[in-house]
Amino acid sequence: MNGAPALLTDLYQLTMAQAYFELGMQERAVFELFVRRLPESRSFLLAAGLEQALEYAASLRFSAEDAAFLAQTGLFHPDFLDHLRSVRFSGSVHALLEGTPFFASEPIVRVTAPILEAQLLESRLLNIVHFQSTIASKAARCVIAAQGRRLSDFGMRRAHEADAALFAARAAYLAGFDATATVEAGRRFGIPLSGTLAHSFIEAHDTEQQAFRDFALSSPQPTTLLIDTYDSARGLERAMALARELKMRGAAHGIRAVRIDSGELAGQARAARATLDANGCHDIRIVLSGNLDEHVIDGLVRSGVPVDAFGVGTALGVSADAPSLDMVYKLQQYAGKPRRKRSAGKATWPGIKQVFRERGAAGEYRGDHIVLEDERAAGEPLLIEVMRSGRRLGGASLAASREHARAEMQSLPAQLRELGRAAAYPVEISVALRGLARDLDAID
Amino acid sequence: MNGAPALLTDLYQLTMAQAYFELGMQERAVFELFVRRLPESRSFLLAAGLEQALEYAASLRFSAEDAAFLAQTGLFHPDFLDHLRSVRFSGSVHALLEGTPFFASEPIVRVTAPILEAQLLESRLLNIVHFQSTIASKAARCVIAAQGRRLSDFGMRRAHEADAALFAARAAYLAGFDATATVEAGRRFGIPLSGTLAHSFIEAHDTEQQAFRDFALSSPQPTTLLIDTYDSARGLERAMALARELKMRGAAHGIRAVRIDSGELAGQARAARATLDANGCHDIRIVLSGNLDEHVIDGLVRSGVPVDAFGVGTALGVSADAPSLDMVYKLQQYAGKPRRKRSAGKATWPGIKQVFRERGAAGEYRGDHIVLEDERAAGEPLLIEVMRSGRRLGGASLAASREHARAEMQSLPAQLRELGRAAAYPVEISVALRGLARDLDAID
Repeated sequence: MNGAPALLTDLYQLTMAQAYFELGMQERAVFELFVRRLPESRSFLLAAGLEQALEYAASLRFSAEDAAFLAQTGLFHPDFLDHLRSVRFSGSVHALLEGTPFFASEPIVRVTAPILEAQLLESRLLNIVHFQSTIASKAARCVIAAQGRRLSDFGMRRAHEADAALFAARAAYLAGFDATATVEAGRRFGIPLSGTLAHSFIEAHDTEQQAFRDFALSSPQPTTLLIDTYDSARGLERAMALARELKMRGAAHGIRAVRIDSGELAGQARAARATLDANGCHDIRIVLSGNLDEHVIDGLVRSGVPVDAFGVGTALGVSADAPSLDMVYKLQQYAGKPRRKRSAGKATWPGIKQVFRERGAAGEYRGDHIVLEDERAAGEPLLIEVMRSGRRLGGASLAASREHARAEMQSLPAQLRELGRAAAYPVEISVALRGLARDLDAID
Repeated sequence: MNGAPALLTDLYQLTMAQAYFELGMQERAVFELFVRRLPESRSFLLAAGLEQALEYAASLRFSAEDAAFLAQTGLFHPDFLDHLRSVRFSGSVHALLEGTPFFASEPIVRVTAPILEAQLLESRLLNIVHFQSTIASKAARCVIAAQGRRLSDFGMRRAHEADAALFAARAAYLAGFDATATVEAGRRFGIPLSGTLAHSFIEAHDTEQQAFRDFALSSPQPTTLLIDTYDSARGLERAMALARELKMRGAAHGIRAVRIDSGELAGQARAARATLDANGCHDIRIVLSGNLDEHVIDGLVRSGVPVDAFGVGTALGVSADAPSLDMVYKLQQYAGKPRRKRSAGKATWPGIKQVFRERGAAGEYRGDHIVLEDERAAGEPLLIEVMRSGRRLGGASLAASREHARAEMQSLPAQLRELGRAAAYPVEISVALRGLARDLDAID
């Protein structure tokens, strides 16, 4: 939620900050946030959460209560806690625009600041950017699969608590979803809302027919009826009967769609469409939900199942097949000297980096170059300065970021849009960067 | 975070509430929250999150701003929105105690209230109980694997946003973890904090030796040193040299442990223990971290690797192998009549239920009985009334729930404590309950 406290961080960020303070280590550090490797089932990832990350950096403050809590842990000196109360993030941030696809080893956020400040951001910055990028990347796959059909986020109930529900709705919308069922996400981010009714409403009535009627008449707008509580074929007949009745009465109410949430969706949707059309209900749409993910959606769409919209819940809300990314925030330079972690299996590229993306004539991606900041390469640089001296520069609306994501996803090479198995994308490490890594390895 | 808004719900809860209101449907409904089936890799689940769920139910209020937002969606009538502002949860809740293991089809929360109120709770109740139960169940497996060694939650950075980090720390502690690195979780829930230092601190120094020294001297308490930034054998030598120096100086500072976070952990830990012991550093402990989960911990412990504590991050924080449970909240009775959903593959047991757990002489679980509320069965009933007329009854401290979880987990049959593959546990559906389901299926 808004205003997550400054103490939402790992303890060691604060003990390290104390050491930096006591040692007078005030030189500039450069940290980069990136993904070491993509999940097996991902050909690309989508950057998201930058907006909230910058809000966090700009508003970070330790209160008197925070300092009092830290004091009673016995781990901190009073002079450091006094200093902590005055800490403000004064550095600069470079980042990919939200909605930009990215690949392994490419910095997506770069923070330059006195080391104490840059270090303090680590845990929460990852917590924000990791989550939204995880969900946006999953949502992007659903968007590709749906081939233009409407997608709604139904994931709140099994999202990982309140914030996850809200920011999953945001990340999914950014990636091209059309709506969310989560009301607060609609209010907070201006995302269109969607919703129908639950099986419980039908079951609370003695007959399905009465439940449909009651629900449709209670709504000031045309409604979607859930037809699979008992038997979707009979449910559909009842929905059509009600639609006819409402039309004859000339009521403001109407039936906009029917939703099927269980069982063999393809067969039920085909049968429903045929029945609807045979009865002149061409305008009643079909919504499918229930354990959907990008693979199920892809299968339904490719086999020509007549469906107008999908509700995607748990698989989206927790990114079920890849609930986390190997995303890290690493020191790349301190006091003007490049730094490199060499732990087994976790070595990273040192120095301050930029990513250039080459495009073909139609804007399609052709390959990326990870280079040192002062190098040039073919294509356009992706990391843009978005914060300077602790102040935001510009900023994009969610609508603008969503449009950016749409255009970017259309520029992905065709094989990266295949959902079946992950495809490789050419990312080149510059000669100078390789050389720097080698030079650092020779020192100890 | 605290005070999640009332609009953190699915839109259809509100449109259904409007229909119930307009139809004057005010009879009592009974909803039960349960898991339809366990994830493949789980032999049991651990109930968690009840405390927050009850807080939510007791404090649910729709504000004037909430009503104003809903009004402008065009989906609601003014008279309903007026009513919504006065809604309070006035019902009763029965639930398992937090920390109680449970199995498929067993109600873990039962809500009895006028249908509008009971329906309104659905989305957020699931959102709360699902998440903490997911994490507690994963944490319980780590606790079993660790066989008494200390466990710390390092999961914040890849948890799904802020709330997930906080409540994962709570759920893990409830299940038997000893500490968390997330400072705010320590403050909010009274969980002991743990933390060391990150590779970046070492890398910001010109030498590892200097970094160790600086960190140890800056801390008012003995510290844990991370020794694998460059090479863990050399890191250990430097840590021991520092430990000797600190002892000779008689400083208040000291080295409590060394942490290894990458590479082949077993070999490094064995070598480290041997070196430490050969140098008289018997009191320096070994902490392992880095992509740990219950299987890795189990392997290390069973093969006798000398390790005193584990830091578990991502696998715990997102419950990586089972990031969601098939948890639902279903109408079981309305206006005194039992109800049953019969959707293909999603049919549920109807009526108001109770779970009896039979135990052997030593308290060990022998089997459960799911029965109708007015039936008796061998063993003790698990669902306890925890809220009546909208007011909490009693309540347990987190420490008490943690102790309950510990005792309960020790009562699990041995095969359920095996981590390799899921074992079955006998859960019997009563004859009367089966009969009721059959009777309802005959109606349409």
